[in-house]
Parts: sequence; C-alpha cells; structure tokens
Amino acid sequence: PSPKSCSLEGPGANRSLPESEDIVVTTEENITTIMFNRPTKKNALTNEMYQDIMLAMKAASKDNSTITVFTGSGDYYSSGNDLTNFMKISGDLKQVAKESSITLRKFVDSFIDFPKPLVAVVNGPAMGIAATVLGLFDAVYASNRATFHTPFSGLGLTPEGCSSYTFPKIMGRAKATEMLIFGKKITATEACAQGLVTEVFPDDSFQKEVWARLKAYAKNPPNAMRIGKQLIRSTEKENLHAVNAEECRVLQERWVSEECMNGIQNFLSRKAKL
Amino acid sequence: PSPKSCSLEGPGANRSLPESEDIVVTTEENITTIMFNRPTKKNALTNEMYQDIMLAMKAASKDNSTITVFTGSGDYYSSGNDLTNFMKISGDLKQVAKESSITLRKFVDSFIDFPKPLVAVVNGPAMGIAATVLGLFDAVYASNRATFHTPFSGLGLTPEGCSSYTFPKIMGRAKATEMLIFGKKITATEACAQGLVTEVFPDDSFQKEVWARLKAYAKNPPNAMRIGKQLIRSTEKENLHAVNAEECRVLQERWVSEECMNGIQNFLSRKAKL
Amino acid sequence: PSPKSCSLEGPGANRSLPESEDIVVTTEENITTIMFNRPTKKNALTNEMYQDIMLAMKAASKDNSTITVFTGSGDYYSSGNDLTNFMKISGDLKQVAKESSITLRKFVDSFIDFPKPLVAVVNGPAMGIAATVLGLFDAVYASNRATFHTPFSGLGLTPEGCSSYTFPKIMGRAKATEMLIFGKKITATEACAQGLVTEVFPDDSFQKEVWARLKAYAKNPPNAMRIGKQLIRSTEKENLHAVNAEECRVLQERWVSEECMNGIQNFLSRKAKL
Repeated sequence: PSPKSCSLEGPGANRSLPESEDIVVTTEENITTIMFNRPTKKNALTNEMYQDIMLAMKAASKDNSTITVFTGSGDYYSSGNDLTNFMKISGDLKQVAKESSITLRKFVDSFIDFPKPLVAVVNGPAMGIAATVLGLFDAVYASNRATFHTPFSGLGLTPEGCSSYTFPKIMGRAKATEMLIFGKKITATEACAQGLVTEVFPDDSFQKEVWARLKAYAKNPPNAMRIGKQLIRSTEKENLHAVNAEECRVLQERWVSEECMNGIQNFLSRKAKL
Repeated sequence: PSPKSCSLEGPGANRSLPESEDIVVTTEENITTIMFNRPTKKNALTNEMYQDIMLAMKAASKDNSTITVFTGSGDYYSSGNDLTNFMKISGDLKQVAKESSITLRKFVDSFIDFPKPLVAVVNGPAMGIAATVLGLFDAVYASNRATFHTPFSGLGLTPEGCSSYTFPKIMGRAKATEMLIFGKKITATEACAQGLVTEVFPDDSFQKEVWARLKAYAKNPPNAMRIGKQLIRSTEKENLHAVNAEECRVLQERWVSEECMNGIQNFLSRKAKL
Repeated sequence: PSPKSCSLEGPGANRSLPESEDIVVTTEENITTIMFNRPTKKNALTNEMYQDIMLAMKAASKDNSTITVFTGSGDYYSSGNDLTNFMKISGDLKQVAKESSITLRKFVDSFIDFPKPLVAVVNGPAMGIAATVLGLFDAVYASNRATFHTPFSGLGLTPEGCSSYTFPKIMGRAKATEMLIFGKKITATEACAQGLVTEVFPDDSFQKEVWARLKAYAKNPPNAMRIGKQLIRSTEKENLHAVNAEECRVLQERWVSEECMNGIQNFLSRKAKL
C-alpha cells in the first residue's frame, strides 16, 4: 500500500495546503505528513515545490502535531532537484544562479530550524538534495527498495543540504567522500550501517511497520520531544547555518561554470535519448 | 561469577571508601573499580550514591591506579536515577529542582574532567543517566545481557549526561534520536554496531575475558595513557561543559513541568501495581 | 600483482621525483601515486622519506592529476615511523625532540591542507603515523590483508596525525580509545565497520578492483571534485591545525620522558633478538 492509502487520506485527514498539487500535506494522529507527489517525474522538485515545502514546514511547526514526516508518492522518495528547472531560465544566468542560491539556502535553513522531531519515510530512491537533507532529519526509516545517490561531481556540482558537514559526521569521511565527491550510489542497508538511516524494513511491510511505530512515538509528551530535539540541534545549529551559507555560496559559482554547463547538458541529452 | 568475586575483593583489594554501602570501591592490579551495589533496587542511584560516586572518582583520579572502571553488582548495571528520589521531596519544588540540577551538573562534570582512562564493564541493563554518561567513557565493554535505554520523553524529560552531544556524534543523529527522543531500547549488539560499546562478550565468559584484557591494558605506562586520554578529551572538553550546563538548565525547567509530574506519577503507579 | 607492476610504471608513467628511491611518484590517467618503497624495512619512514613525501604532495597538489593516491610496495602499507631514527640522534636530545616535533607538524599539515581528493590504497599492515593520518584521507581502500595498529602507549607515546580528533569522530570514542590508548590492533573488516576504511577487497582482486574504480572516479570534472573536497575540509580545517599543533607539543615532551626511553629501548632490544 502506498503511504497515501495507508495513512494520508483516512477519514480524519486534515489538509492544510489544499491548493498545492505536487506537495500533499495531511495531519492525522498527531503526525503531519508532507508528501512529494509528482510520481510521474520521480518526485523531482520544481521551483514551486521548494516554495510549497517551506510553507508546509512553517505550518507544521505551528500546528498541533508532535512529529512531522516527509515521504514520497509512488516508486521514488524523490529524485532531487528537477534539472529541467535550469532549462526554463531566461535572462541573466548569473542573476538566476544568485536567486537559486538564495532559495536553496532558505530551503535548507527550514530543515535546520525545524522545531519538532522530523522523520523521513524513504519509500524508494532518494537523490541529490532529497538525499543530502536527510542528514538534518531526526530519524530516517527506509524501505529496502530505497537507495541514496548524490552524483554532484559528474554534473560539475558540489554538496549541499549541509551534507559536507553532516555526512562526514555521521558516516566518517572515508564513506562520505565516496558518496559526495565520487558519486557512489549506496543501498538502504549500507546507509543504515553507516548511520544515515535509522532502520531498514522489507518493502512489503514497510508502510505498516513504520507508521505503527511513528503513531506510537507521536503519543509521547509533545514538549519533552520538541525541547529534547532542540537541545540536540542546539549544539550545532550555528555551525549548520554557516555550512549551509558556504555551500550555497560555492554552488552559486559552480552553476555558472563550464563544468556544470557541460554536465547538465550531457545529463539532459542522455535523458532525451531514452 | 559476579565482578565482585572475580576481582573486587581478592586478597590484594584495598578499599578506599569503606563507609559507603551502595557504592563499593576497590583497587587491584592498577585498576580502581567503582561498583554500583544496590542490586535489590537494580542499582538505581540515590542522592547519596551520586555524592559517593563523585568522592570515589576524586579519590581514583589521585590514587596509583592507571585505569578506573565502573560496573554493577547483580543483574543490572544500573537503572539510572532512582525516581523515588522525587517522592522524598519536601518543601519548595522549584528549589529542589534547582538543587537537583546543580548536583547533576557536578556529577556529569566529574566524568568530563576525569583524568585517567575510564572504562565501563556493563554487566546488565543500563538506563537513563547510567546509559547516557557512557558517551563520556573511554571504553565500554558489555555483556550480551546488557541493554541501553533512555526513556526520557515518556517521563516528560530530556537528555542529560552530555548525550544530546555525544550520542549523535557517536552513532549519528538518525540512531541517537530514536534512543534519546523516542525512547527506543537497544541491545548490546546494536550499541556496539553504533559505536557506543567497544565490544560485546557472551555473558558466560564476560567477566573473565574483560578483566583479563583490562589487567593487560593497565600495565601500559601510566603517564602515556593519562596524557593520551586527556589529549583526546581536550578537543571537546569546553564543548562538553557547555552542553552539560545547557542540559541541566533545561531539565530544571522540565522537572517542574506538568508533563514530568504526570510522567513520574504514571511510572510510580505502574510500578506499585506490579 | 604489486601496485608497481599494475599501474605505476606503465609506459605513460611520468616520474616527478626521479632522485628519490624510498618514495616513488608516478602519474597516470589523472592519478598521481605516491608509493612507500622500502619493502625490506616494512616501508618504515626515515627522516628523508618524510621530506620526500612532503615534496611529492606539494608537486601533486599542482600537477594535472585529479586524484592523489598513497600506497605501499611489497607486503606492508607502512610500519610508520622508523624507530631507529631515534638511534641516529647525536647531540642534545631536547633539541632533537624539538626538531622532530616541527617536522611532524609540517608533515601532518601537508595532509590537512592537501587540496585534491586524497586516497589510500592500503595493501597491507598500516602502523603508527601511517595509520593515524588515514583519518585525514578522503577515501581509504584496504586489502583484507591490511591491519591497523597504533601502539603508542606501550612506547610511552601519545596519538598524532590528528587521530586524537579524527578517530573518535569517525568511530566513536569507545572504539578509538582501544586503538589509540590501549594499542589494540584491528583488522581491515573492523576498520571498515568503524568507518576508517571505505571498503575492503579480497587481496587477490584488490589491485585490479581498486585501480579500476579509481580510474573511473578520476574522470570526474576536476574542479568540482577539488572544490567539493575543500568544502568538506573547510568545516574542520582550523580545528585540525590546532589539534596537530597540540599533539606535536605533547609528543615533544613525551619523546624526552623516561617512559618513552624505556619503551623504545625495549622495542629495539626485542627486535634485535628476533
């Protein structure tokens, strides 16, 4: 069963962002769920989706829920930034890179600053920004179908989502570099052994087991969980904001580099041939 | 064999805190051992035991031993703070919370500042503060009977013992949050895979194997070990003191919260029904 | 096949340090390889080799290669500092300790500051400084014949190569102390589980598999890899330099201590008896 049928549209579901289509937000049993819902495009993130996610997180931080969950609709969790975003660019490339950098920074800041326990239910492959920000989540449950892939270098790009700090911290530099710089894709089991993932479940029982567990967790006293989460975050919050700012500054330069132009061109032409 | 029969009361044992009953301190073959000795109460820590442990650590830091070991008598390592401590409170609750916060901070500081290699021999379940301070130990050997459990949120409480910093550093945030915020109990094998535990031994041979190893280690040049340990600690000592202060400040508020009152009431009434 | 026959002296190889004998440097297919080449002495590092490695790294940081690799010739990766270096000392011991401390600090700084992805191909046992600086590498591939051993305390010494910071960060303090303070030797498989090693390969296919992978990685856009690596390093570079300075300051005192004199004496006399 998809997470949708399983928990997002039950009778008690209470939509808080009804006008959005590619992002679906529901609240049930103390859990607010933000779902990537663009399954025909592997839940790739459009510019509008970045904005909608930030709005949804702002709302979730203030609603009555105790835990906030991200998940994906269909086979993918999310394939990350939709590279065709770059095709839609008109006007000055440098200006667009600057604006993209500002958006990315705000987007990642909203994960750094999120005040309640934040959980990812990774139903399938997670790529790019959808994979890197997992280092900012409080817990990450993965189906054994999930993979984690950050092929930045091949596109002439560099790590974001604070992964240049969180991944080495979580998994050690020897594993982090192979993912972030050499672009190696890892399985859910590997990601769990390396600490990026909390626990892996067989895909058959994934939705059932994870949601049962989350519903039990969501019954804990909300203030204790919220304050406890913020206590953990407080020891590195300032650091994370500095890392995010630096990553976005570097990417702004990368986006207008020849390596990046060539990398994205190659990616899109390979894709067009399929 | 219990650690007591195995090593703590041999002919060469030299008691340094004879007046204490719930904490037993012995020194043998360069190793000072501090044993939780309240087995009928799962080695839960009374207010007096906190004080005695601090005194024992102060003495151990100055004696001729090269390594200091914590262990438990009986089936448990320690079930952590004795919650009936809270029942004995008379007078102003806010004042008691303030004093408890000061005691806790001093107690954890004594682990942060301990100058010699500090080893835990975890003979059984470790809970609460007995589990969290393990992140401040230099090595942790566990019987396969040991478990690690920090059910703070259910009691309306938040992490202490620097665990809000050490656990995410050691095991990554995805695993640390499940323990510290969602209250998941983990096995010795899991704790070892996640880096909290150095090595797990079958309970049958646990005492024999661990003490043989520790006695060999204790023969290393003492200054090299002491200075090496302090070198490792120095890179984060200031940070740990700040974390400890913040955790205690937050707990002082938590202890007078409604969530905590209800949580402890529920715990004690469940226990009374057993 | 040794790494030499496999990739270092192919027809396209381009030596950049021809006068060196114990360190061999070659560049092929975008990869500069720095090989420890004193196999009859387990690739133990002489004073000249420290200097040659620093020169080789300086050259590699500026050449056209995209990745720099360290490896060893023969059965060992490297047994670390050649302790007979200490036998060659004439003149004031304190002065020699001071100069050794300055050399060590510069040597480790060259790893901290190296600007491109730095990879270790660990063909056999790695000891002492050869093991500790692995915590500063971006990726570490190991043969299942490799072991990792830092027996500092037994020699009256303390950790270097930033390992007092990197090892606890990578593997957690409980595992790091057993290696760095208690001198426990670990296998390649253990080092991989603990995050020090990226991946372990059967010795039979080690050279073939690792070099194929590295040649593929080396084709990635060079600026993206270089800038990405520096981004990861930037979050802790200042910290690493401070750790290195402190480790060298402490070692300078250790080298003239009685514990160290005795430790090295014992080591050399045990060795002489073999």
